[in-house]
Amino acid sequence: MSTGSKSYTGKFIVIEGMEGAGKSSAITIIEKILTEQGIDYINTREPGGTPLAESLRDMVKSVSHDEKLTVETELLLMYASRSQLLANKILPALAAGKWVIGDRHDLSSRAYQGGGRGFDENTMNTIREITLKGFAPDLTLYLDIDPHIGLSRAKARGDLDRIELEQMDFFVRVHNKYRELAAQDQTIITLDATKTMVRVHQDIEKSILAFIAQTNEN
Amino acid sequence: MSTGSKSYTGKFIVIEGMEGAGKSSAITIIEKILTEQGIDYINTREPGGTPLAESLRDMVKSVSHDEKLTVETELLLMYASRSQLLANKILPALAAGKWVIGDRHDLSSRAYQGGGRGFDENTMNTIREITLKGFAPDLTLYLDIDPHIGLSRAKARGDLDRIELEQMDFFVRVHNKYRELAAQDQTIITLDATKTMVRVHQDIEKSILAFIAQTNEN
Repeated sequence: MSTGSKSYTGKFIVIEGMEGAGKSSAITIIEKILTEQGIDYINTREPGGTPLAESLRDMVKSVSHDEKLTVETELLLMYASRSQLLANKILPALAAGKWVIGDRHDLSSRAYQGGGRGFDENTMNTIREITLKGFAPDLTLYLDIDPHIGLSRAKARGDLDRIELEQMDFFVRVHNKYRELAAQDQTIITLDATKTMVRVHQDIEKSILAFIAQTNEN
Repeated sequence: MSTGSKSYTGKFIVIEGMEGAGKSSAITIIEKILTEQGIDYINTREPGGTPLAESLRDMVKSVSHDEKLTVETELLLMYASRSQLLANKILPALAAGKWVIGDRHDLSSRAYQGGGRGFDENTMNTIREITLKGFAPDLTLYLDIDPHIGLSRAKARGDLDRIELEQMDFFVRVHNKYRELAAQDQTIITLDATKTMVRVHQDIEKSILAFIAQTNEN
């Protein structure tokens, strides 16, 4: 991870992408590679990943509230969850030399709450700075998929949560923001998730092996 | 309440102050006056006041977590609670012409998280703007008490919650910030809560009756 004065031996790898992009399969592949390379790792997911953050995840994702969540609450709870996960799981693991495989992280909030809900850059940057203080993943694999394709995959898979039940124009905004942010950041690798599964898995493997090789050189 | 384009007939009165300042008694007095004047009102408390916000209140106040709350999470959850309360209770009540008596509101966060935890003005103002969009109480009664006196009253009363268990220097910072903010804002009336109970109650009554008279003139 990249942050101010501290240096860690662990690395933080994040898988990002929209519903149906294939994040779970990607994580399985990364786990296999790290295990083969003898790298000790933990898994996280966001929102969630600590007992308190999992409670916040339930609040954000549940469709059964009588009480409507404001978009502001959604934004604030996403970052509260992230703050708990960072302090209680990610930073301690990295400090102990472990790698962390994250199923979503800050880029999701920038895409869903920033792009999807329309919170502006200034708002997003302030709340990111409060919560993260410059912390960022070492590598993000962004699995890019057209939301029409991704959503139809996700729907075929079963029940959709509160956010997944949004209208298509919401997901188009999320997708555009994902692509925009991925193009600006050298630590984010965009992979085409509409290729055949074999090809996507090869791309993931190649990216992770290159990252490990680069890490070993430094 | 004062906000941009909308106009409401209801008024939002908030009671503020530190532990042991006498907020509960103050609220009872205000309820009695509003009832006598035939003014329809609801009560709110913060954090909390909706089912989801009450869950957030439990998270923030509980001392039984295995998991330590970060100060960032505390800040974010306070405003998430406020967002739910505003959208689901305060604004609908005011729109229906009801008055709202608030047991704490935004001034508490500015004092406890801003003054006590040390979040700077810029951070506080950004998160307030995200959540409140300029919304503010019509009248705040701030019951001013030296934290040494207030805390000893609160301790005599029983179990202290997670925030009430902070060290005295925390409460001194909260108290200083309360006084500083109260002095800057004409809608906040500072009352000396160390006077005898009879005198404090007279001061509260006088302030509320003057506010009602002023409201009727407009």
